[in-house]
Amino acid sequence: MPRSAILAVYRVRGGKKEAEGLAREIAHEQTVEIPEELVEAGIREAAVGTVESVRPAPGGAFDVEIGYKPALSGNQIPQLLNLLYGNVSIQRGVRLMDFHIPPEALARFHGPNHGIVGVRAALGVFGRPLLATAIKPNGAPLERLATLARDFALGGGDIVKDDQNLAGETLAAFRERVARCQEAVEDANRGTGRRTLYCPILTAPQEEIEERIRFALGLGVRGFLVCPMLVGFDQTRLIAQKYRPVLIAHPSLTGTFYGRPDHGMGPGLLLGKLFRLLGADASIFPNHGGRFPFSKEECLDIARRLREEWPPILPALPVPAGGMRFENLSAMGEEYGQDSVFLIGGALLADPDGVERATGKFLAKIKEKFRERLKAPASTEAVSSCELPSSNGAPLSKAEHLVFENFRWRGRPAVEYKKSRELPFEGVARHELVGKDGLKTAFELRYFEIAPGGYTSLEKHAHTHTIVSLRGSGVLVKGDRRVAVKPLDIACVDSMETHQLRNEGSEPFGFLCIVDRDRDRPMKP
Amino acid sequence: MPRSAILAVYRVRGGKKEAEGLAREIAHEQTVEIPEELVEAGIREAAVGTVESVRPAPGGAFDVEIGYKPALSGNQIPQLLNLLYGNVSIQRGVRLMDFHIPPEALARFHGPNHGIVGVRAALGVFGRPLLATAIKPNGAPLERLATLARDFALGGGDIVKDDQNLAGETLAAFRERVARCQEAVEDANRGTGRRTLYCPILTAPQEEIEERIRFALGLGVRGFLVCPMLVGFDQTRLIAQKYRPVLIAHPSLTGTFYGRPDHGMGPGLLLGKLFRLLGADASIFPNHGGRFPFSKEECLDIARRLREEWPPILPALPVPAGGMRFENLSAMGEEYGQDSVFLIGGALLADPDGVERATGKFLAKIKEKFRERLKAPASTEAVSSCELPSSNGAPLSKAEHLVFENFRWRGRPAVEYKKSRELPFEGVARHELVGKDGLKTAFELRYFEIAPGGYTSLEKHAHTHTIVSLRGSGVLVKGDRRVAVKPLDIACVDSMETHQLRNEGSEPFGFLCIVDRDRDRPMKP
Repeated sequence: MPRSAILAVYRVRGGKKEAEGLAREIAHEQTVEIPEELVEAGIREAAVGTVESVRPAPGGAFDVEIGYKPALSGNQIPQLLNLLYGNVSIQRGVRLMDFHIPPEALARFHGPNHGIVGVRAALGVFGRPLLATAIKPNGAPLERLATLARDFALGGGDIVKDDQNLAGETLAAFRERVARCQEAVEDANRGTGRRTLYCPILTAPQEEIEERIRFALGLGVRGFLVCPMLVGFDQTRLIAQKYRPVLIAHPSLTGTFYGRPDHGMGPGLLLGKLFRLLGADASIFPNHGGRFPFSKEECLDIARRLREEWPPILPALPVPAGGMRFENLSAMGEEYGQDSVFLIGGALLADPDGVERATGKFLAKIKEKFRERLKAPASTEAVSSCELPSSNGAPLSKAEHLVFENFRWRGRPAVEYKKSRELPFEGVARHELVGKDGLKTAFELRYFEIAPGGYTSLEKHAHTHTIVSLRGSGVLVKGDRRVAVKPLDIACVDSMETHQLRNEGSEPFGFLCIVDRDRDRPMKP
Repeated sequence: MPRSAILAVYRVRGGKKEAEGLAREIAHEQTVEIPEELVEAGIREAAVGTVESVRPAPGGAFDVEIGYKPALSGNQIPQLLNLLYGNVSIQRGVRLMDFHIPPEALARFHGPNHGIVGVRAALGVFGRPLLATAIKPNGAPLERLATLARDFALGGGDIVKDDQNLAGETLAAFRERVARCQEAVEDANRGTGRRTLYCPILTAPQEEIEERIRFALGLGVRGFLVCPMLVGFDQTRLIAQKYRPVLIAHPSLTGTFYGRPDHGMGPGLLLGKLFRLLGADASIFPNHGGRFPFSKEECLDIARRLREEWPPILPALPVPAGGMRFENLSAMGEEYGQDSVFLIGGALLADPDGVERATGKFLAKIKEKFRERLKAPASTEAVSSCELPSSNGAPLSKAEHLVFENFRWRGRPAVEYKKSRELPFEGVARHELVGKDGLKTAFELRYFEIAPGGYTSLEKHAHTHTIVSLRGSGVLVKGDRRVAVKPLDIACVDSMETHQLRNEGSEPFGFLCIVDRDRDRPMKP
């Protein structure tokens, strides 16, 4: 099945005969999980993996290549991991060396949103390695953490990320800290004219992760630090795919995968290829010669797997880190080249000249070797009548309720907004009723009123609309159908259904609209 | 800080001096991640771990005990893992041996919903080890998989779970398979009078997991199989906490954690203690003497950590599996005792007498040693006026909309239900409008109508209510306040706020109510 199969390469111990036997065992264990002798022909063809090759490998081991039908992975990360190394991980002496996904199946996976070029465009920095630092130490006053972020940005640093140990804080503390650090970096950016990126950490209870993301995005945050082993491989993929931030992966808790050379998988495969597949635009790993036991070969293997051609998965940035010093910057530039990020932690904090000047020195050292180029990125975001950013009125306090009077609710004025060229609309007023004001809901309730002759944007999106008509009469255009609605009729718009609401009457047409709080942006039909 | 600290015990290599140095390094790495010399006193006290002891351990190693402030874990699983073994996992020669969470912090974690007693009560089987099997092989026709489930149930088996390799299927295929298997098991249960449990697998893209859960729960499924390493540690905890099924954990992809004795963590700590903390009521692991390299000591350590006293975390069931045969059932009964589950796979399929009779034989063998007792479980589920199960009318097709007429919508009749003693209500009719009929939403829209003199249950819950009054007048009781609402007023009930809706007028009081689709059950104030 080679061309159309998912190929997994395992290195196994023992002689050739043993390796061949083990290869057959793996092919069964990972697919049908019953002994070979119980498998009849139909099932063998439908599901069992095929042994594609058994070849000698260094150190007297053998590399066995197993082909799996792509459907067995369901084109989803969790089951792909199960297929490649689920039960086999419990065997000793079997290491996953690599995997290959055929193009048509690979296209179903997501990969980085921005990749190397996109991250550079977001920063406006080309031609040289990027400089990053971490906000630390945990336990320091917020003021000091925010100052560190500001000073690093003032010194010309490119990316400042949270320390992964900061994540024990409550949601409220997260909000406060992220607001302060983002403000500090933006403040510095206004001074320097640069676009230093602040990336908060997203280690949190599952229920809170998206709330933290939305909060941070609302502040203008454009990137996040994620530990895939802590929050889950597929949660990482979801964050990338749903919110499209610049995503930096951190290796916390990954060490057991590469703790021994004849088991697990190498850091290149895990922190490089797999994290890239999850959607990491950059992946942090301990540089060799620092306080963690990575070899130079392992580090360069990570960098290679992050950056090599793997269409349609974009290339990502290697981020060597851990015990990095001024003295080894030149060697690192030599080793990793310009498309990399150097993460400097303690050495910046320890510099007697302070963080801003230390950052400048590190940057100057990088520029000795690489010529920086600046280029403005082009930004193209769609806005529609129902998705424009709004600032809401007073919060719906616990005691209060929204008193109705003549199709208005006290404390809920219409939201003003500018027209969009992408998704034009006319005569639409929006009132945010519930969901934007602190009450914890999975939905938002809004009231729209369309003036006679007005209409909403003609658009579609993955989320659905539920509409309860309240006032006047209107027409809901759904695909090529027209549905006339009168007060208290309820209508829905399905996922990806092109739709528009029109007022063809002579009175205002008003309706409640309920949407999921987590939803995608509207797009043109 | 011992009594109030989270204690982590690491086994480290090298002499005593080296161990002491390493202990201090770990205490810094896991908390502030800057070198000891850069840490001033204030931060040391606020954040840095404390070395509580360094003691000789077998094989010339040392056990070092580090105390961490519980706040650093944020009382959440992802950050607890980061604190215990995040960056340290990347060091060589450091193994996490155990951890201890002080009672007040432990109470913030969830643990199993049912535990050993609860699972037994759900099955109605006491006094003997439980018998389980897996639906396999992947690739077989659905009819054959469902028949296997039925035959196992007919033979008297207790738990039939999906094979973890089945999960590559689409959502549609999952629905079809789970419906068929659940039906097959229920059909058998009607014949035997037993309550064999069918547990589908929840390996799926993050976005789909809860949809799969809700679908299965809707069919009457009461348990699930989850692979924490595939879907995420905290996703596992969320499934347990939010949906409260019987949860069986599977060890797929966990092997790298215990691949070497001087690194990672033992299977007892991971598959026993940690999976129990996540909420597993039962944890599957490869039995010794089977096709995986677990020792008897490792297996018994898993069993011990699942079952030992750890209040308030309920004890859970060990599930030895993998290459189990009729011949070793007696020895397993001896080793694991009555509070365990024996998972038999291939040996059942291979039995020439067929699955039903083979199951009967295995069960008879178990009963030779253990006397089975049956006891009717006391079921105490809270039902309230707004959360009773409903079967909905016709789906809201894409073309249709819900036409309003005299406070009714075509195709949306009132749902009938029985009264609840726990949460009494009176004169309440409910109409499911949107959210239960296939439209993908994060919310549900319902219309309630309360007859004069009627009232809803006095209750509270973690989810919020949003109410849009439509007809008549009513009173919303919130804590000790009364809010009078008239048509098109909008009111909200906050999380855990005790509330009730009352009709004290002489006309029907009707209102729309919007709630999150994923929500907890109401409870008494």
